Amino acid sequence: MKQTLLLLLFATLCAAVSGEDHALVIQTDFGTKDGAVAAMKGVAVGVDAHLPIFDLSHENTPYDIWEAAYRLKQSAPYWPAGTVFVSVIDPGVGTERASIVLKTKSGHYFVGPDNGTWTLVAEELGVEAVRRIDEKLNRRAGSEKSYTFHGRDIYAYTGARLASGKITYEQVGPLLDAKIVSLPYERASQKDGVLRGTIPQIDFHYGNIWSNIPDSLFNELKPQFGEKFLVVIFHNGKEVYRGVMPYAKTFGDVPEGAPLLYLDSLLDVAFALNMDNFAKKHELSSGSGWSVTVERAKP
Amino acid sequence: MKQTLLLLLFATLCAAVSGEDHALVIQTDFGTKDGAVAAMKGVAVGVDAHLPIFDLSHENTPYDIWEAAYRLKQSAPYWPAGTVFVSVIDPGVGTERASIVLKTKSGHYFVGPDNGTWTLVAEELGVEAVRRIDEKLNRRAGSEKSYTFHGRDIYAYTGARLASGKITYEQVGPLLDAKIVSLPYERASQKDGVLRGTIPQIDFHYGNIWSNIPDSLFNELKPQFGEKFLVVIFHNGKEVYRGVMPYAKTFGDVPEGAPLLYLDSLLDVAFALNMDNFAKKHELSSGSGWSVTVERAKP
Amino acid sequence: MKQTLLLLLFATLCAAVSGEDHALVIQTDFGTKDGAVAAMKGVAVGVDAHLPIFDLSHENTPYDIWEAAYRLKQSAPYWPAGTVFVSVIDPGVGTERASIVLKTKSGHYFVGPDNGTWTLVAEELGVEAVRRIDEKLNRRAGSEKSYTFHGRDIYAYTGARLASGKITYEQVGPLLDAKIVSLPYERASQKDGVLRGTIPQIDFHYGNIWSNIPDSLFNELKPQFGEKFLVVIFHNGKEVYRGVMPYAKTFGDVPEGAPLLYLDSLLDVAFALNMDNFAKKHELSSGSGWSVTVERAKP
Repeated sequence: MKQTLLLLLFATLCAAVSGEDHALVIQTDFGTKDGAVAAMKGVAVGVDAHLPIFDLSHENTPYDIWEAAYRLKQSAPYWPAGTVFVSVIDPGVGTERASIVLKTKSGHYFVGPDNGTWTLVAEELGVEAVRRIDEKLNRRAGSEKSYTFHGRDIYAYTGARLASGKITYEQVGPLLDAKIVSLPYERASQKDGVLRGTIPQIDFHYGNIWSNIPDSLFNELKPQFGEKFLVVIFHNGKEVYRGVMPYAKTFGDVPEGAPLLYLDSLLDVAFALNMDNFAKKHELSSGSGWSVTVERAKP
Repeated sequence: MKQTLLLLLFATLCAAVSGEDHALVIQTDFGTKDGAVAAMKGVAVGVDAHLPIFDLSHENTPYDIWEAAYRLKQSAPYWPAGTVFVSVIDPGVGTERASIVLKTKSGHYFVGPDNGTWTLVAEELGVEAVRRIDEKLNRRAGSEKSYTFHGRDIYAYTGARLASGKITYEQVGPLLDAKIVSLPYERASQKDGVLRGTIPQIDFHYGNIWSNIPDSLFNELKPQFGEKFLVVIFHNGKEVYRGVMPYAKTFGDVPEGAPLLYLDSLLDVAFALNMDNFAKKHELSSGSGWSVTVERAKP
Repeated sequence: MKQTLLLLLFATLCAAVSGEDHALVIQTDFGTKDGAVAAMKGVAVGVDAHLPIFDLSHENTPYDIWEAAYRLKQSAPYWPAGTVFVSVIDPGVGTERASIVLKTKSGHYFVGPDNGTWTLVAEELGVEAVRRIDEKLNRRAGSEKSYTFHGRDIYAYTGARLASGKITYEQVGPLLDAKIVSLPYERASQKDGVLRGTIPQIDFHYGNIWSNIPDSLFNELKPQFGEKFLVVIFHNGKEVYRGVMPYAKTFGDVPEGAPLLYLDSLLDVAFALNMDNFAKKHELSSGSGWSVTVERAKP
């Protein structure tokens, strides 16, 4: 009898130790000078004192939903299934945009406003289900009078409860149609050996140019390391850069200052100068209006 | 007999698992480019390998004690009781200012120099007790020759020992009078329907203006959402902004670029432009010399 | 029989709880606006959901290996033995520089490219052993096509496996000669009462000047607090600053704005202005070409 009890306690304990906890990963455009991110984390720690909490970034350009979408694409797939992402780039806080939790087919959860933030992870990881957050059940106690900080009062709270297993996905709120608000953007394509894509982000820290042309499309050209490619970059349809560069495995394969075409860490086609800043040197940027073509250079 | 032993072990284990640990939250003006914050965390991890450690912010304006005080007010109340805050904005390091641990009536602990940093949390959370850190007992071993980094050698070390339960609050050191050094500032007031307050901080990231007028005072005017208010902002007594704006529940209630009066996330009266930067547009700032009046607009 | 089983389970559980985990501490030059650091952490959490993960800094000047070396010297010694540091300032990613794990005599581990990053910690903590990372065994599954993000695919992965005890140090890969690539720099010296040293870093946040003259060398002059010293700073051999200042215990020992010589938090000789920015005021910097002499001032 006592042994049965012991085993039961033991099982409970094992569950506690093995850690049903999943990580909570937070992205905002609040910056880290402010106390706002710390207030969010305090709410999460109040839900579960031992929740593993991480930052994606808090330096997202204010209100830039596209950038937030790209940062999620850049990092979420590398986290284990069960990880809960809270993303608060929310120019419409307090308006009628839905507050949701997206579950992807990969088993990741995404908590925040349904304003386009989930565009790229939805595509890449697949939409399994979408639930509207029931704010009657999933709201920090005492926050009823607060209308402008859903990140703290609803999203961090709900994300922490989900990550720690305090609520199930079903307890988030009612099921919606399995689709999210998507930001429109042009897909990469290949025709007659010419690749066409956009520049969703630059690697601002080093000045490398990231396209949205995936390796699968690039491989249709059957490229070999060392072969030369013609790269043309356009802004609002006007050519702003034209150059020939080798397809290199890595930066050190070309001399310092020389250009190269390579596959970036997401295995998309990218352009860089070894040990120099391509974007700054040629005044290139990313986002709406920026596009690129790539084709094998004429011999 | 064996079962008794097992139960005993089991109880010990449960205590370990249930986690007596409380979170340690650190604020400094060191920035994060430097190795100084990491040295502080190393000391804390050396005390307890599994201590949950978080950042409030390390980007506090160097030496700006008032800003530090405001960041604590903005975040500390959202953390659970038992959380230990270490704050090192310490222009007087090594001089005679006391090193203390403040315990508030809310059950939070605040570790650092008694130089005004605790002004606002002491008011908001209430002073339960103040103890001077006994540096003979509570100092990192081997740090005796170091006089300029109390953040690492005393505060992180003592904070970690307290958060992890390695010492009790009583073991911090001798009890002092239950009061702390307070920075002087003007309280908000209401007279004949005119609210008068200061601007303790701007929401620098978005340019919103935060006053120190609490919702309780504002509610004396019995405001309704949509009603218009006259807002006048002064710098050193000189009027620098005058405008009429509605009391809005949230930003999206007014057109883009339009001003609004709202309650910020601390439920203080605040002013903003929807999707624009109020402070930058009108060259407004915060701190000493900045004040504001609010009254119902004449029809 | 059942009790034996229970005890066995219990022992396993105790091991799990007592936390074989050591901390993983990450340094990069990626910045934190980007999703790259978060991708690295995701990989580490995928290895062990409860690994304690910390940032040294991600704001290292891009490609500046010397700065990275200094930040490690500034923080690593304050972490407990067993801590695993991953440092990715890696201009040569994908080239032939070795990927190693250095074990120091102090019991710390350092994971990353062998490009000079370990110069100062190797000296200070002593080289116990160096192993080349066997990328066949120690590489994130599915990363075979990725050549430009070893930080995520190899270093974070291997560091997390080592910190969590999933692999032993021996399983990192084959033993190399117990030495690492060292950046050349001039050691501090004393001759006829004149100390000569370099300026490896400035305390950029406050503008204090840190020399590489250790307290042991300074103490050969038998200095007393309050005694005056002549400090001369050179850039590329040309004198750019000359001043007399007291040896002070701490900043508050001199008037605001006045210069002082003190021992910094690493107990090296340093120079500052109390509550002012020495480096900015006198246009001083650090690194190659910057040196300093210190001697007792003539009465």
